[in-house]
Amino acid sequence: MSEPVVERLALIGIGLIGASIALNAREKGLARHVAISTRSAETLARAQALGLGDSYHAEAAEAVRDADLVILSVPVGACGAVTAGLAGALKPGAIVSDVGSVKGAVIAAMAPHIPAGVHFVPAHPLAGTEHSGPDAGFAELFVNRWCILTPGEETDVAAVETTRRFWQGCGANVETMTAEHHDLVLAIVSHVPHLIAYNIVGTAADLETVTQSEVVKFSASGFRDFTRIAASDPTMWRDVFLTNKDAVLEMLARFSEDLALLQRAIRWGDGDTLFDLFTRTRAIRRGIIQAGQDTAQPDFGREHPKKA
Amino acid sequence: MSEPVVERLALIGIGLIGASIALNAREKGLARHVAISTRSAETLARAQALGLGDSYHAEAAEAVRDADLVILSVPVGACGAVTAGLAGALKPGAIVSDVGSVKGAVIAAMAPHIPAGVHFVPAHPLAGTEHSGPDAGFAELFVNRWCILTPGEETDVAAVETTRRFWQGCGANVETMTAEHHDLVLAIVSHVPHLIAYNIVGTAADLETVTQSEVVKFSASGFRDFTRIAASDPTMWRDVFLTNKDAVLEMLARFSEDLALLQRAIRWGDGDTLFDLFTRTRAIRRGIIQAGQDTAQPDFGREHPKKA
Repeated sequence: MSEPVVERLALIGIGLIGASIALNAREKGLARHVAISTRSAETLARAQALGLGDSYHAEAAEAVRDADLVILSVPVGACGAVTAGLAGALKPGAIVSDVGSVKGAVIAAMAPHIPAGVHFVPAHPLAGTEHSGPDAGFAELFVNRWCILTPGEETDVAAVETTRRFWQGCGANVETMTAEHHDLVLAIVSHVPHLIAYNIVGTAADLETVTQSEVVKFSASGFRDFTRIAASDPTMWRDVFLTNKDAVLEMLARFSEDLALLQRAIRWGDGDTLFDLFTRTRAIRRGIIQAGQDTAQPDFGREHPKKA
Repeated sequence: MSEPVVERLALIGIGLIGASIALNAREKGLARHVAISTRSAETLARAQALGLGDSYHAEAAEAVRDADLVILSVPVGACGAVTAGLAGALKPGAIVSDVGSVKGAVIAAMAPHIPAGVHFVPAHPLAGTEHSGPDAGFAELFVNRWCILTPGEETDVAAVETTRRFWQGCGANVETMTAEHHDLVLAIVSHVPHLIAYNIVGTAADLETVTQSEVVKFSASGFRDFTRIAASDPTMWRDVFLTNKDAVLEMLARFSEDLALLQRAIRWGDGDTLFDLFTRTRAIRRGIIQAGQDTAQPDFGREHPKKA
C-alpha cells in the first residue's frame, strides 16, 4: 500500500458507485479516513454494517468537514441541492467532485454553490451494473474502465491531478474532455442505448397478441440482453434524460432516421442494405474486444449449465 | 447413454447450430450415425477435422439417404432450394426438420418439396451466440433453452414426438405452437431487438461529432451490449428480416410509436412518464431471472479483472 492520495475522503451518497469507491479507498489505502453520508438513515446503517467507512454522518455537512476530497454519488437531479447543503462546511483547498452521467447540467447546478478557494473537478466513471444500493458495490467495478474528468479551463491543475490519481488508484483509465463533448459522447454510447432498451421492454410488455409470460419465456433469443439495461436504476436514468435533453434528442433523431431506412429496406425486400450494415456492425464489435472493453467469450461469457 | 432417438441423423449445414446438434447427438447417443453435409468444401473439411460426424458428404442427397431424421441448419433464405435438392433421396417415413428463426416463410418454401410419406416437423431452437461456423458449436448451447415446434395440424403425431425427444435429448424444453404465432412472438423477443441493435451501432459509427474510436473506447457504458447482438451472422439475419417482414414491420411500428412518446416526455420534461416505464421494465427483468432464462449475476456475470 502506497501513500494515500488524500487524507480525508467524504462520500456523499453510498449506492452502487459510492460503495465501490469506498471499497477501493479502504482496500487500496487511497484515503486515511473515509467519511460517509447519505440521505436515508436505513442506507447509512447498511453502509456501516458493511464496514464501508471510518465515520458515518446523517448530515452531509458533517461528513465533508475537513475533507480533502468530496465525491457526490447521488442522482444527477439531486447534485445541486446536495451541494448547496454542504458547501458552507467545505474547507479551503478542498476538492469537490461527482460521478454524474451528465456533466453540463450537473456543473450548472453545482458550480454556483462551490465557495471560492474550493476546487470543482467534475468526474464520470463509466462503470456500473444493473444493480443498485450499497450491497451492489464491489472493488473491481472500475478496473480498466474509463473515468472522464471535465474540469473548467480555469480549474487548479493540482486538484485535477489529485482527482486523476484517485481514480487511477481505483483501477480506472482517466481521460479529460469538455463537459459539452462528454454529454454528446455519452448520449450515443450510453443514454440512447438505455432509452431504446427501456422502450422495447415496454413495447413487449404492452402487446395483446403475445403474452407477457411468452416474452419472459422466450427472452433468450435477444430480448433478455435489453432487459438487463432496462433494469437500471429508474431515478438515476430519469434524471439523465431530463438533464441531457438536447444531446439525447439529437442522437435519438439520428437513430430514428436510420431505423426508418432499415424499415424501408425490409418493406421493399432490399437485402443488400441490410447485409451491408450487418457486416459493418460486426467489425465494431471486434474493435471493442480488441480495445479490451468487452470479453471475447461468446454470449458475454454467460454460464451455460450442463443440465437444468 | 440410453437408446438412440433415431438410427441415422443427417445434418445439412454445420455452422454454430448444426455443430452444436452434432455434438449433442454424439455425446448423448441421440443417433447411431451422424451424416454431415454442407455446401462449402472447406467447412465440411473443418467439421471432419473436429470429428463432428460419422460420415461427410459433399452432396446433401447423399447424406440424407436412409436417414430417419434430417435437420437443415442453413440460412432461412436457403431452406427451399436445399430441400428441393435433397427431397428425391429421402426415404419413406423420414422426418425433415429445420432450425430456422422464421417459420411461416420457411414452411412455404420447404413444404412443396417434401415427398408424400415423409414427415415435415419445422423447429426453432431459441439458442445461439454471436459467433458462427462449426468451431463455435458446443454441446451445452441448448440446455434449458426453448425449442419451438410448429407442425401442421395434419402432421404425424409420432414424427412430432420423435422430434420432441431429440430436442429434449439436447437439453432443450420443447413447446408447440402455430407458425404464425411463432413468427409474431419471435418478432418481438428476437427480430426487432436485433434490428435496433444493428441500427444503433450503425448510427454511432456514422457520427461526425463523436469519433468511432471514442464510441469503441467508452462503449462499456451501455453500447457494448448492443454490439454483441449486432455481431450476429449477417446472412442469417438478412434472411430473417426479409422472410418475417409483416410481423417485424408491425412490431417495429409499435416500437417507434412508443419511442416517440418517450422522446416527447424528454422534450417536455415529463419525468413521471419516464420513471413509471423504468420501474415497470425492471420487474420484467426479475421475471426473466425467476424463469431461469438469464443469470441473476450483475452484468451477465461478465468478468471484472482484478487489475488490467
